Amino acid sequence: MDAVTQQLARFLVSSQLPDIPVSVRHEAARAILNWLGCALGGCGDVTVDRLLAGVQPFAGNPEATVLGRSEKLDALNAALVNAVGSNVLDFDDTHLRSVIHPTVPVAAAVFALAEHVRVTGAQALHAFILGAEAECRIGNAVSPEHYEIGWHITSTCGVLGAAAACGKMLNLSEQQMTWALGIAATQASGLTAMLGSMSKCLNMGHAARNGMAAALLAAQDFTSSARALEAPRGFAHVLSPRCNLDEIVDGLGTRWELMQNAYKPYPCGIVVHPVIDACLELRSEHGISADAIARVDVRVHPLVIQLTGNPTPRTGLEAKLSTQYCAAAALIRGRVGVQEFTDASAQDPAIVALRSLVTLQPDDSVAKEAAHVSLTLADGRAFEKTVAHATGSLERPMTDEQLEAKFRSLASARFAASAVESLIAQCWALERAPDAAAVVRACAFHGSGGGREDRRAAQQA
Amino acid sequence: MDAVTQQLARFLVSSQLPDIPVSVRHEAARAILNWLGCALGGCGDVTVDRLLAGVQPFAGNPEATVLGRSEKLDALNAALVNAVGSNVLDFDDTHLRSVIHPTVPVAAAVFALAEHVRVTGAQALHAFILGAEAECRIGNAVSPEHYEIGWHITSTCGVLGAAAACGKMLNLSEQQMTWALGIAATQASGLTAMLGSMSKCLNMGHAARNGMAAALLAAQDFTSSARALEAPRGFAHVLSPRCNLDEIVDGLGTRWELMQNAYKPYPCGIVVHPVIDACLELRSEHGISADAIARVDVRVHPLVIQLTGNPTPRTGLEAKLSTQYCAAAALIRGRVGVQEFTDASAQDPAIVALRSLVTLQPDDSVAKEAAHVSLTLADGRAFEKTVAHATGSLERPMTDEQLEAKFRSLASARFAASAVESLIAQCWALERAPDAAAVVRACAFHGSGGGREDRRAAQQA
Repeated sequence: MDAVTQQLARFLVSSQLPDIPVSVRHEAARAILNWLGCALGGCGDVTVDRLLAGVQPFAGNPEATVLGRSEKLDALNAALVNAVGSNVLDFDDTHLRSVIHPTVPVAAAVFALAEHVRVTGAQALHAFILGAEAECRIGNAVSPEHYEIGWHITSTCGVLGAAAACGKMLNLSEQQMTWALGIAATQASGLTAMLGSMSKCLNMGHAARNGMAAALLAAQDFTSSARALEAPRGFAHVLSPRCNLDEIVDGLGTRWELMQNAYKPYPCGIVVHPVIDACLELRSEHGISADAIARVDVRVHPLVIQLTGNPTPRTGLEAKLSTQYCAAAALIRGRVGVQEFTDASAQDPAIVALRSLVTLQPDDSVAKEAAHVSLTLADGRAFEKTVAHATGSLERPMTDEQLEAKFRSLASARFAASAVESLIAQCWALERAPDAAAVVRACAFHGSGGGREDRRAAQQA
Repeated sequence: MDAVTQQLARFLVSSQLPDIPVSVRHEAARAILNWLGCALGGCGDVTVDRLLAGVQPFAGNPEATVLGRSEKLDALNAALVNAVGSNVLDFDDTHLRSVIHPTVPVAAAVFALAEHVRVTGAQALHAFILGAEAECRIGNAVSPEHYEIGWHITSTCGVLGAAAACGKMLNLSEQQMTWALGIAATQASGLTAMLGSMSKCLNMGHAARNGMAAALLAAQDFTSSARALEAPRGFAHVLSPRCNLDEIVDGLGTRWELMQNAYKPYPCGIVVHPVIDACLELRSEHGISADAIARVDVRVHPLVIQLTGNPTPRTGLEAKLSTQYCAAAALIRGRVGVQEFTDASAQDPAIVALRSLVTLQPDDSVAKEAAHVSLTLADGRAFEKTVAHATGSLERPMTDEQLEAKFRSLASARFAASAVESLIAQCWALERAPDAAAVVRACAFHGSGGGREDRRAAQQA
């Protein structure tokens, strides 16, 4: 496949927003609403604190908002920090085919750059759609081998998506866009060895920041290879044992990868989600009180147990990968949100007691995305529930209302209810906003010590 | 090999300068002198101009010098720009075993950071030695496959060297140094597809900047994998089809990679160097005038012709990879410096006329690092010269005096002779300097339009 980089650049430069279906534009608004909520929920994490302490002494003009915080940074550093903050809860979206979390690197770059160069909401939305498209298509081209050998695909492909989006916002020529993709490709990095450490999120930050920098340099006619994606020593061949470059250009402008994007209702391992759905539904349908439960039997595919069969998680992080814990938390609290994955919650005696009553049964006949849960009460009554597809799957996507509720739960730690509703409205109305940056400027936190405490940061610091 | 990252971190943290042989410390001073000359020679290049235009609007506190220029940047951005400027002439050093150009990413980071945190010359020299050591050993561990498949090894390993050096300057603990190496490893990037474009040098800039950033974050207890180099999805296994991790730790503190470092006397392809040596020696030994030459017969290994057999280079860049051009330039001008690789020189009628009289003969019996040159004059006289190892090879290293002469030729475009001599003296005396940054502050260019013109920039702009 010749000149893939140039074909992609030409598409990005020539794309017009009215040519993009309304359904795709609406999906982009959903992705941005979900992303902004994740950023406001994660912004107080100690990971963000330490990152800010490291970069602030070198930051430039304080032009761009650190979402949910009072600090301001230059746009490049804001992209870095906001990508980290919006990923730290593991609550952001997933392009299921490539396992890319598409919005974090692209949106963090788009909205930070929107505070450096004024663009309309429509321009930002358009740039975001194109950046996510480039990112996911490049991911498709090298999947699954690229991720399997150890590349953190959201970072390696995210830098290209961020460059594409920022390049669109900067009105790059086709030649410049080709260079921007090249400058991004030669910065592609991020190892999955970092999972479990703060540098997992940092990979996202580098993608956002470096992609924006690539577009800014290309705008100065800083040159790169014109065949960065397809050259023998270019991105695809160097970073993957196998690639299908057709995936990058086939059906450009007619098939949109954002339509394959999924949102998490629960901030934990995605394979646990059907079990949580079943437990929440059993609890609400039958008005079950946790202390009435004698046993919980969960039947799932063996892979689910392999990935998330931890019976005794001790930290919030470990709890995210414990089916037993998640089932117990859902049954006791009737919700599985960020607060259920603090270290304090992981050690909550009531949840600890109930999780010991949860038994996991491997069953090859249950699909990987399904779960069967049986509850037996102390009085002998029994209830059961089968979930074929969890909330948030492509088959049963989160509704707009569910995404709004998720946003409220994440944003309310920092913002008053009226401000939260205003932010939601601004996300839905982004395409009509005269200034794309208004919505992120509204995410600056004006309190200091006197404001609401961020419990997660306080707990971890 | 377990815990290679941690072993390396422990060595870096515990190393004491007095334990490093004087010969290694002197080699480090030679490397820094050579690097600084390359930076002053390259700083006016259009590549640097465009990079500065891209990054300046986002730069922070103007604390650090852009070598040879009047601009000041925050230390991270200064590391970026100075690495690019010192690599742009392709005149910097080479660790021959790994083909890493070791000094650019490490020294650019060390001396920019020295303007942010005050350290002595001895501390900077020590940090530089350790950074180059880490960088080259990691390169050895993944060579030659890593470079062969398309990784720009100076960038991918340079980021680790820069992190190690900056981590030493910041007095990181062993745990923090392990994190710094991890944060660097997860930023390892740089494709050889970029060779021939401005992004070739940009790869060096990213290594310097990102390595420094890694150390700064680790100093804030920003965590990463503790096994970033050796983990199954860590640096070595992900970025190379084969690796020998023993190379990283065997003989640490007893064998020093800087002793395998080579310096270029001529800013062109290294395989042409023996031919240039032969031509320069013939010219000076016999007082040959170019217009007396009837033919030039060059016998070299076939690989030399394959790499540099271009009979009609049209630009300065192409001339760097033309044995015919280089032979003619040496015979006509009696020197082969930066001025011989401008576009104007490539089209110099006298050189063009003589290069057409140069014939290349492939000869398997001539070693790759050797050359045989025969000159036939119009009056029938003939002279010949065989060079077994070129000036600058490990067998025939550039002397301190030759390095000084190279520095003078590069620095004199920007600085008066007295300032040039002072800079040379400061490099040799670095280990005794109370403030490491003094030598780079002395490289700030205080002129503007009224100063000396940079011919290369003027020509390319």
